[in-house]
Amino acid sequence: MYYWPGIQGRGEFVRLALEDAGAPYVDVARGPGGMAAMERLLEQKKNPPFAPPFLAAGRLLIAQTPNILLYLGTRLRLAPADEAGRLWVHQAQLTMADWLVEAHDVHHPIGSGLYYEEQKPESKRRAADFLAHRVPKYLDYFEGLLPKGGYLLGRRASYADLSLFQMVEGMRYAFPRAMRRLEGRYPRVLGLHERVAARPGIARYLASERRLPFNEQGLFRHYPELDLLVK
Amino acid sequence: MYYWPGIQGRGEFVRLALEDAGAPYVDVARGPGGMAAMERLLEQKKNPPFAPPFLAAGRLLIAQTPNILLYLGTRLRLAPADEAGRLWVHQAQLTMADWLVEAHDVHHPIGSGLYYEEQKPESKRRAADFLAHRVPKYLDYFEGLLPKGGYLLGRRASYADLSLFQMVEGMRYAFPRAMRRLEGRYPRVLGLHERVAARPGIARYLASERRLPFNEQGLFRHYPELDLLVK
Repeated sequence: MYYWPGIQGRGEFVRLALEDAGAPYVDVARGPGGMAAMERLLEQKKNPPFAPPFLAAGRLLIAQTPNILLYLGTRLRLAPADEAGRLWVHQAQLTMADWLVEAHDVHHPIGSGLYYEEQKPESKRRAADFLAHRVPKYLDYFEGLLPKGGYLLGRRASYADLSLFQMVEGMRYAFPRAMRRLEGRYPRVLGLHERVAARPGIARYLASERRLPFNEQGLFRHYPELDLLVK
Repeated sequence: MYYWPGIQGRGEFVRLALEDAGAPYVDVARGPGGMAAMERLLEQKKNPPFAPPFLAAGRLLIAQTPNILLYLGTRLRLAPADEAGRLWVHQAQLTMADWLVEAHDVHHPIGSGLYYEEQKPESKRRAADFLAHRVPKYLDYFEGLLPKGGYLLGRRASYADLSLFQMVEGMRYAFPRAMRRLEGRYPRVLGLHERVAARPGIARYLASERRLPFNEQGLFRHYPELDLLVK
């Protein structure tokens, strides 16, 4: 598995699935010579990925986070075997992918190639809209999907549950004040977050050095001036 | 198939696949009582979609544009039957989905719930970054994937080719001046666009009343002040 070293970013959604399943994998770009290996694949002539993360699995090179999880899902027993179930889990994942872009764009509303410092006033406006309207919309949606005391599919966890855990983690890191105010309304989402954190593979991973800390180079960034208190 | 009536939007990527294949379908929300039917599905208790478009296919209700195309792809013979091919086409589609969000966010950099008129200065800044950096990056990427005179997969068209056609259509509508300046560098992308437009199902569709015109309620919007000339 290939991703930028130093941040959780999109790679984290893939790592969580691999770690939960106890699947052996190499986080290539974090090892010696890994960045060069990643760059080579990004520049390969035949069907290069647009961007990390990507997964080299046998002869396949698979990019786009939800696509990687689609591939891994049934193999890691983190998605149902039937088509309807697989499509549903993928659909939930794609909805989180939308949410994730919005969480990133809070600190990069003008351009991903510019520094945050070059777009601070715009970020503040976007944060207000994101926290007041978009975050409740996404949390309402997932709260409504979750059964009491269960996973999205009921008793069996899927990769989408692991991703929802990560969305809560990231939101809490980036917007602790706002989340403290919002969280009480979402007991099922919070319950799911705890349930995922306690899964053996995830608990082991979170306690390990493989889990990178959040920081201000990642998708979720804590800028206190963007952590607004909303109604 | 359910989508907001009056705009091409994300629904268009699904329509193009159905039309190319000559598959019978109903564009429900554009018919009598269709909006109410769509709202009911959005509010259904069990596994509602987060947003349109969605497709009711037998007992399945499938949302998220790339997910719908994943489902339709092999059935409409617009994706390979083998897993590697299916994942690759899906990966290309997801990359276009990223591009599409960015094209939308040019006119909505602060919040999707605000009017464009409430975020005009920010839009202008974002347009400059989008046209100077992001559009060339995406076009370079797809130009590099395309064989000369062919489709993404070679001789056989996939739904990702139809989507790339639509990206060019939308970009030309929204940014005619910028695209005139950029286009010459991308002969393969333009060739693909012409090839798709000439496919019988697509040509028939584009000439029909089923093809809605672009407008300033959709994802691609023509605001002359955002159609900047970049190097």
